[in-house]
Amino acid sequence: MWRGLIDKYLKYLPVKNINNIVSLYEGNTPLIKANWLSKRYNIELYLKFEGANPTGSFKDRGMTYAVTKAVENKSKAIICASTGNTSASAAAFGARAGLKTIVILPEAKIAKGKLSQAMIYGAEIIPIKDNFDRALEIVRKLTEKYSLTLVNSLNPFRIEGQKTAAFEVADQLGKKKLDILALPVGNAGNITAYWKGFKEYNETEMIDYLPKMYGFQADGSAAMVQNKVIKKPETIATAIRIGKPVNRDKAKIAVNESKGLFHSISDQKIKEMHKILASKEGVFVEPASTTPIAGIINLIENGYNLKHKKIVAVLTGNGLKDQEFVLNNYDLPVGVKGNLKHIENLINLMD
Amino acid sequence: MWRGLIDKYLKYLPVKNINNIVSLYEGNTPLIKANWLSKRYNIELYLKFEGANPTGSFKDRGMTYAVTKAVENKSKAIICASTGNTSASAAAFGARAGLKTIVILPEAKIAKGKLSQAMIYGAEIIPIKDNFDRALEIVRKLTEKYSLTLVNSLNPFRIEGQKTAAFEVADQLGKKKLDILALPVGNAGNITAYWKGFKEYNETEMIDYLPKMYGFQADGSAAMVQNKVIKKPETIATAIRIGKPVNRDKAKIAVNESKGLFHSISDQKIKEMHKILASKEGVFVEPASTTPIAGIINLIENGYNLKHKKIVAVLTGNGLKDQEFVLNNYDLPVGVKGNLKHIENLINLMD
Repeated sequence: MWRGLIDKYLKYLPVKNINNIVSLYEGNTPLIKANWLSKRYNIELYLKFEGANPTGSFKDRGMTYAVTKAVENKSKAIICASTGNTSASAAAFGARAGLKTIVILPEAKIAKGKLSQAMIYGAEIIPIKDNFDRALEIVRKLTEKYSLTLVNSLNPFRIEGQKTAAFEVADQLGKKKLDILALPVGNAGNITAYWKGFKEYNETEMIDYLPKMYGFQADGSAAMVQNKVIKKPETIATAIRIGKPVNRDKAKIAVNESKGLFHSISDQKIKEMHKILASKEGVFVEPASTTPIAGIINLIENGYNLKHKKIVAVLTGNGLKDQEFVLNNYDLPVGVKGNLKHIENLINLMD
Repeated sequence: MWRGLIDKYLKYLPVKNINNIVSLYEGNTPLIKANWLSKRYNIELYLKFEGANPTGSFKDRGMTYAVTKAVENKSKAIICASTGNTSASAAAFGARAGLKTIVILPEAKIAKGKLSQAMIYGAEIIPIKDNFDRALEIVRKLTEKYSLTLVNSLNPFRIEGQKTAAFEVADQLGKKKLDILALPVGNAGNITAYWKGFKEYNETEMIDYLPKMYGFQADGSAAMVQNKVIKKPETIATAIRIGKPVNRDKAKIAVNESKGLFHSISDQKIKEMHKILASKEGVFVEPASTTPIAGIINLIENGYNLKHKKIVAVLTGNGLKDQEFVLNNYDLPVGVKGNLKHIENLINLMD
């Protein structure tokens, strides 16, 4: 029976007492073959669907370990800054552990679904009229002054927990050797975690290869691509709307060591891929999660030869978290009377 | 590597050609121990978290098989009536299979998240100014007249696919013998499917017990409890707002054979349990999914002795599907300036 990531990968995620593990049975997410895209672009593309996690994003992987360690250290409260997914995850694991959870969010640009999560899980929520980078600055100062456990990815246990995604991808691929791991880059913690995971799995002889790490950003918040702080990050992909990635140095190392790259794409390409992924593959993700796929295809269209490459794209968050993106960008169908004849005429039944 | 339910349970879900399987790697959802509730009510309660499925509900279990069979039968289009979850699932699997998908929905009472799913997956959507029961009537008439595959739970392959949830629960419990399987009842397909699954697993000697089936409804749409058609079903639990359950006869048999029961609870109890489940267990579900737990506790409070019973509550749908329920029922936190001093004063740091 699946009991979550610490139970599964205890060797890589040591704890003092297994009775203190705080888990929502996170992880164990599917690796879905992208049939339509693979055929169309002549690649072997798999989708790591992290939206299947308990709070609908990959953040749960790091949160189980960070909150377990907070309990081990007898912490009474946890705190984080967030563009949404971290706060949802912190609030859920905080609730599970019986800890007070405080989250500081940029008020204007957080997806409603993520806000509703933090609310119902019972976190204390402070929305600020400023951006993520400022929220993180405030959280850091508060943790210096008060006895609060920081659960942003500055907390090293977060990265430790998140590295399990690399283990799962490798386990799921079995004998297949992954060429490229492609993922969205916001605060740059996840690319750092995947690289750490692949290296540890390689060192412990679970795999005999290392994939290249490809990190993708939105043009309007491409701090890694442009190698500078973006003062006013802007993108529809709110989950990666971050101008000053905390883990930028480690992420650079991951890309350099693995001979990977950073690349950015437009909001328009994000929107297009969002629709393609849902309507051709049947997979609904939040906008940020489309960046690795839109990015890979953009590279191919720019002349990169990725033919037959085995590529895993990490789909970091569930589409349901940002359903307004759909409701605001597409026309709602118009209601009609429940009349058979009328509906027969409406539907294109002869297609 | 997990490749979905048909691949896993092929013996119980036969197909003509495994290359035709249409899967989003559904199933394999966690069974989470409800620590807080178990302790408080002196029961052994587990939560089958079906929100982890690819479209966020248990419907994906039946849809993989129904759509695979539609492909086997060379169908070009699928159609369903839905309170939301079925349409999301049909649209996703239809997209994955490259089939046209038509969904007919009650306009007023469908959760926005579910509508956004059907939209982005590319279904043709007809919202009607009427209720679910009328939508289903229209769909049945259309399938009699045109070459469309019905994928409501009248389609027997839906129930076949859904029975895998019973297999998973039994596998996850291992040597523990389940006493009670508790679940929400709307159209009554799922309770029928679970009972079929447990019986098949028992007949094939995978388990040597059979649990009691407890079906829970909302007071305002308690067609099974009251044993009559409810003409104007009303409840905040939109997923089970059904007055004329299609599978009512089979559901009665499931409850009678297993020595189970039907029971209903108020919308107020649904709302209370929705909050408890999120803030004490860290699990966020759509309102209908709280009925089995609110129902079990209501039974205990009414004098039923369920002490130490092993109970699995099926949480049919992800909370993100009905995030308006949170946003409309709780006060949104108020935005403040990103000022450290001000925020220090706001947060209850001394608690």
